[in-house]
Amino acid sequence: MTERNRRWLLAKRPHGMVKESDFRWDESVVPDLPDGHALVRVLWLSFDPTQRGWMEDRPSYLPPVQIGEPMRAAAVGQVVASKSPSVREGELVQGLFGWQDYAVVPGPMLAKVPAGVAPTHVLGVLGVTGLTAYFGVLDLLRPKAGETFVVSGAAGATGSVAGQIAKIHGARVIGIAGGAEKCRWLTEKAGFDAAVDYKAGDVSKQLGALAPNGIDMLFENVGGTVFEASLDHLAQRARIALCGGISSYNDTAPQGPRNYMNLVTRRARLEGFIVLDYAPRFAEAVKELAAWVSAGRIVHQEDVQQGLENAPKTLLRLFRGANTGKQLLRLADPPLPS
Amino acid sequence: MTERNRRWLLAKRPHGMVKESDFRWDESVVPDLPDGHALVRVLWLSFDPTQRGWMEDRPSYLPPVQIGEPMRAAAVGQVVASKSPSVREGELVQGLFGWQDYAVVPGPMLAKVPAGVAPTHVLGVLGVTGLTAYFGVLDLLRPKAGETFVVSGAAGATGSVAGQIAKIHGARVIGIAGGAEKCRWLTEKAGFDAAVDYKAGDVSKQLGALAPNGIDMLFENVGGTVFEASLDHLAQRARIALCGGISSYNDTAPQGPRNYMNLVTRRARLEGFIVLDYAPRFAEAVKELAAWVSAGRIVHQEDVQQGLENAPKTLLRLFRGANTGKQLLRLADPPLPS
Repeated sequence: MTERNRRWLLAKRPHGMVKESDFRWDESVVPDLPDGHALVRVLWLSFDPTQRGWMEDRPSYLPPVQIGEPMRAAAVGQVVASKSPSVREGELVQGLFGWQDYAVVPGPMLAKVPAGVAPTHVLGVLGVTGLTAYFGVLDLLRPKAGETFVVSGAAGATGSVAGQIAKIHGARVIGIAGGAEKCRWLTEKAGFDAAVDYKAGDVSKQLGALAPNGIDMLFENVGGTVFEASLDHLAQRARIALCGGISSYNDTAPQGPRNYMNLVTRRARLEGFIVLDYAPRFAEAVKELAAWVSAGRIVHQEDVQQGLENAPKTLLRLFRGANTGKQLLRLADPPLPS
Repeated sequence: MTERNRRWLLAKRPHGMVKESDFRWDESVVPDLPDGHALVRVLWLSFDPTQRGWMEDRPSYLPPVQIGEPMRAAAVGQVVASKSPSVREGELVQGLFGWQDYAVVPGPMLAKVPAGVAPTHVLGVLGVTGLTAYFGVLDLLRPKAGETFVVSGAAGATGSVAGQIAKIHGARVIGIAGGAEKCRWLTEKAGFDAAVDYKAGDVSKQLGALAPNGIDMLFENVGGTVFEASLDHLAQRARIALCGGISSYNDTAPQGPRNYMNLVTRRARLEGFIVLDYAPRFAEAVKELAAWVSAGRIVHQEDVQQGLENAPKTLLRLFRGANTGKQLLRLADPPLPS
């Protein structure tokens, strides 16, 4: 097979804000397909804040992307050739295919997109971001009816789902997002009880007014002064699911929450988690999420950019907060009939 | 009764490091004893890092000390007059008597020093600091045999007991303390497996060498770069009991832990606690602590200064790290026979 394979390789470790020049465009040919492998045409790329961490040369929950390797990314694709008994040509599959037109993957590593599910949903509301919301809310925070729930990055792919799951479980839900339009979407479309625009003045003051009895649960995605504002208003025995801190991922000198001693005076619990740990329970969770989506109890948005050449620019959209909902990039025409 | 009562009043809210001039010396007379109250002669004052927080004008787990009030402090004293059926003259009692010679206290608020217990022990190893260690280790951290346990402020009244309780429960215990002498005490007297001197070079490097498989449990008392060094080496699913952060209590611009996102990648839990919440279980805990002390399984040190006039200076010893073990101040001659 001599199909051309266009790729974005990691050219250098970013210093501070990730730049397009941290990646290098490359055109090669698709390698021969070894036995047991499948050739996947990449159709949609997923963009996730955690990718910034994968670019660093330090140990994390996945090894760093090496210089000269295609940038790692979750994706959905279609099998165009298979030498593996576990997948056949035409099937839609998902995996960490990376920023390239084609990926050669061992057959057993490929997860099939279930019949009847929109392929982009497995990257978002029924994929890693939706699952992150699901387990963060239901396993770590465990909302009880009437409690006050705050989520930062609330208009994002994870935050918006987290807030809606908490709402389904009876919490009073406040979202923190950037800009009036995102905040309007939260309260008018996503059923949030209130929204705080962090671009429109003192977040701590706004939260204090909206949560006079304190924050019982915090789903934390942002870090920086937004995180500190929530820590200002923790209720006694508050619990915090620490999911991320996107505001500092590109900082050369990130700061910690200066008021973290509030965790002592409020007897609060701050817990980090990685959604991959819940893999054995993904099927159960996807079933419940899919039912909520079908019933209109969870709404979600997709921000779909076009063309592999725009992959670095699309990653930057995340860190500028330009996206509303799940950030995706479409690479190829709609899939062949499978 | 016209006995003279010498007191240290809070003169102003400290800005940055607490200063002797934040307090004002006062001499008044002991007020008349109302019905239902007892007059207590204060014998020993306890000095605790948490007192710094009580001086701030902000809500915490106890209301702020008001300007012009005697500085709040835990203490042991002796009843010299009683108009309450619940205590009688001569009994040794403990409470928040404050920096003064005499306190007038409602009888039912007085806790008696149990027979056979050294009065100073109820302020330290069998008191709030020992109990803080006990519940932080056994309720929050729950050591399992063979796990690695790190405690900062390890030569302090709470830290030294925390490490020894973890050791009793089979953990491998590393203490972080300031200076060779304190570190020697930890390994030679208190049975710690290792000690890190934060004054002798890079704490993170030293911890990395001593805990190559990571830190399973952290009992955190110090904050700042010492806390960050421990966060560098968290094991997967590490748990952290957040007890205090003495290094920043006097900072006008305290910093948070810059590497707190390690809590995500290590799936770690950070939990604050206040020992007063465990009051219903104090009796059970004191019994177990007392047995360990009697059996020589917990050793402890007391640093006893002399004279009420030295109360502000003694508080400063804590924040300079000048004390080893429990910081106390003796006010009066040994108690009358009770």
